Amino acid sequence: MHPIKNGCKYLETIQSQHRLKFTFYYKYLTMSLVQEFNDYRSKMNEVILAHDHLPLKRFFSLDNQMYQEGALPVKTKELLGLVASMVLRCDDCIKYHLQKCFENKVSSEEIYDVFAIANMVGGSICIPHTRRAAEFWEELIGNREEAKG
Amino acid sequence: MHPIKNGCKYLETIQSQHRLKFTFYYKYLTMSLVQEFNDYRSKMNEVILAHDHLPLKRFFSLDNQMYQEGALPVKTKELLGLVASMVLRCDDCIKYHLQKCFENKVSSEEIYDVFAIANMVGGSICIPHTRRAAEFWEELIGNREEAKG
Amino acid sequence: MHPIKNGCKYLETIQSQHRLKFTFYYKYLTMSLVQEFNDYRSKMNEVILAHDHLPLKRFFSLDNQMYQEGALPVKTKELLGLVASMVLRCDDCIKYHLQKCFENKVSSEEIYDVFAIANMVGGSICIPHTRRAAEFWEELIGNREEAKG
Amino acid sequence: MHPIKNGCKYLETIQSQHRLKFTFYYKYLTMSLVQEFNDYRSKMNEVILAHDHLPLKRFFSLDNQMYQEGALPVKTKELLGLVASMVLRCDDCIKYHLQKCFENKVSSEEIYDVFAIANMVGGSICIPHTRRAAEFWEELIGNREEAKG
Amino acid sequence: MHPIKNGCKYLETIQSQHRLKFTFYYKYLTMSLVQEFNDYRSKMNEVILAHDHLPLKRFFSLDNQMYQEGALPVKTKELLGLVASMVLRCDDCIKYHLQKCFENKVSSEEIYDVFAIANMVGGSICIPHTRRAAEFWEELIGNREEAKG
Amino acid sequence: MHPIKNGCKYLETIQSQHRLKFTFYYKYLTMSLVQEFNDYRSKMNEVILAHDHLPLKRFFSLDNQMYQEGALPVKTKELLGLVASMVLRCDDCIKYHLQKCFENKVSSEEIYDVFAIANMVGGSICIPHTRRAAEFWEELIGNREEAKG
Repeated sequence: MHPIKNGCKYLETIQSQHRLKFTFYYKYLTMSLVQEFNDYRSKMNEVILAHDHLPLKRFFSLDNQMYQEGALPVKTKELLGLVASMVLRCDDCIKYHLQKCFENKVSSEEIYDVFAIANMVGGSICIPHTRRAAEFWEELIGNREEAKG
Repeated sequence: MHPIKNGCKYLETIQSQHRLKFTFYYKYLTMSLVQEFNDYRSKMNEVILAHDHLPLKRFFSLDNQMYQEGALPVKTKELLGLVASMVLRCDDCIKYHLQKCFENKVSSEEIYDVFAIANMVGGSICIPHTRRAAEFWEELIGNREEAKG
Repeated sequence: MHPIKNGCKYLETIQSQHRLKFTFYYKYLTMSLVQEFNDYRSKMNEVILAHDHLPLKRFFSLDNQMYQEGALPVKTKELLGLVASMVLRCDDCIKYHLQKCFENKVSSEEIYDVFAIANMVGGSICIPHTRRAAEFWEELIGNREEAKG
Repeated sequence: MHPIKNGCKYLETIQSQHRLKFTFYYKYLTMSLVQEFNDYRSKMNEVILAHDHLPLKRFFSLDNQMYQEGALPVKTKELLGLVASMVLRCDDCIKYHLQKCFENKVSSEEIYDVFAIANMVGGSICIPHTRRAAEFWEELIGNREEAKG
Repeated sequence: MHPIKNGCKYLETIQSQHRLKFTFYYKYLTMSLVQEFNDYRSKMNEVILAHDHLPLKRFFSLDNQMYQEGALPVKTKELLGLVASMVLRCDDCIKYHLQKCFENKVSSEEIYDVFAIANMVGGSICIPHTRRAAEFWEELIGNREEAKG
Repeated sequence: MHPIKNGCKYLETIQSQHRLKFTFYYKYLTMSLVQEFNDYRSKMNEVILAHDHLPLKRFFSLDNQMYQEGALPVKTKELLGLVASMVLRCDDCIKYHLQKCFENKVSSEEIYDVFAIANMVGGSICIPHTRRAAEFWEELIGNREEAKG
């Protein structure tokens, strides 16, 4: 058995015996930034939507509609979502749109054009978010190369 | 002895021998989100107030007075504190006011009304904060049910 | 004829002869803050909705739904809308929610409780917005007293 | 002589005799939103640059470089500048990028796609800025039609 | 009689006969940016404080205490207030601290150092606020020279 | 061999065998807040600059120039950078300027003057950031005392 998984298995036994919380710790050891972000996002979106708050559900649904093809293509809309997330400095929103950009074949050169404009408009206060964005982007690129290689 | 505590005991021995820092790691394994937030908050507030900066101490004190009963009841004031923290996107402030709301018998339905308005006013940039707020709220609710059960 | 209206009539003649723009000037002389805000808001909402952008129209419609009675009453929701607008420092949003609060029988004492919490959470940077909010609120109150008197 | 100009001439005589300030008033009567914005922007940029603060001048120059063609075309970069300005809620920055979008042949449908995403990401707090953006955009469009007609 | 004052006198007669509002218009014609800002600020602060909301009054009072000499001198504190107001993009707060800086003998070169850092940290979104700040600063400087000359 | 290093060595073996990611976990156990921040900052700045985006590189370079001696001394400029980072609520920027303040011999009393003004201007929403800033500052002070002791 995988030694980390094995160690985690052991921790899970302790956890269930003692009702402690360390799910996140487990994840940290075994997951990539991308997986970790997506897992938490899916899990908590489910929790939120399960509360069945109609206007809030409509808000979530409208958020999806906004990025569908309109006068502007999906790719441009995702670039807009990314730059808006960067100047408002929300790491999770940045990660979400970086993934969408990646799926829509945005190149690294184009991503860095967005990074540059975001820093110019939003200021040096955006630099730490740019560092985390760059790390996430490298992982997305890295995963693709690994898949090919 | 509690196996996690035992493991941590071992780490603490290493720590004291080598003057390393991993208090937080220990906490992560054994504490809930609620406890972790409250512990860090208390500890650091003490550090800050120990510096005896008079105007800053008055500021902290005034912050408490603001939420005491006035023309509006405490419960409404805590809802105001929560929505303001959400649109300004401060996770720790959200946690603080969620606890206060919980103590003031705010229901989950009312909390989700606040979540919805915060997202509407503040935009989709608030969604990741709503996810973390929902997680914290579930733990508060869960603790209560556990205490009852 | 009303002398201001008369003067404005004269300006309008000049305007139509020379295709100049000074509608706003006219309004400034003859309108209250409340009327001016409401007129501009209605006029420009019409312009926006006339572009028939479906997701944007849904967004405007959802914005209305959010403040309808839910687990929380309309009055509390308007207080939430007001405090959120104040900490995000949008004068027009503040004006809008002040009117809604006024229609929902919020008292001056309650409004000042909201002003106080908004300043505490959002900081002294909110003070100039509080000044403009106070001016608008006085006019709302003044109009009511004038109507009664 | 142009009656408004004539009236203003009279006011200017008074002004020079009494060293009063009402330049802006004059402009309000005779200028469009677009002209007014551009005039003030040029005049004050000159004042700022005349202070010869080297890092600040480099900052202004870099701001121009950011929107030059790179991996992304100028048009897309201006859309990015517009959405960033909208979610950060700066009316003057919005006006600047609306003009640049207009010069780069962005259509009204595309502009409204940007408005919609900005409102979604930034929230209903962006609605008043959208109203002012829409007014400015109508004037840009109107000027073009007038020029053609 | 002063021709502008005379014209305004005439308008005031109309105003009192017809209960219209155009106080601001009068001020616009006869006042400087500095006077206009200070007058409105004083008048509305009075309105707010007259409501006798104790925590809000303490907040206003604490705001004054913060800028009194401490470990840092008043001048440095005012520079801090100015840069904070610029990155948070509040024109009225900027005006207030520019006046305080002026009273504390801050030079134009020092002010432009603050402008530069504010733009760097806060981004190009601060440029329009820098323009308005520069205009206000020129008037402060101009008034001093006029007084001397 | 150092037991933590030894343990981490073991984890690294597992890591290389299984291509897992837990570098951060390793760092958490053995590094201080200061080291951790500086390491991540250096590493990711390298990644960003390696993309050779000219305007973005100029932006990074200009960010350094801004804090060099001008009309204001370096120490004052770093205080400005700190207060701006606090009101904009960026923990990493706060850490960066705290270090720079520390290197420029800013005292704890002066730092708390900055904390106080930042909280006043930016509001109670800055309190959690003040807690993290205080923790980082204590470590900087502690390291110095340890070095001396």
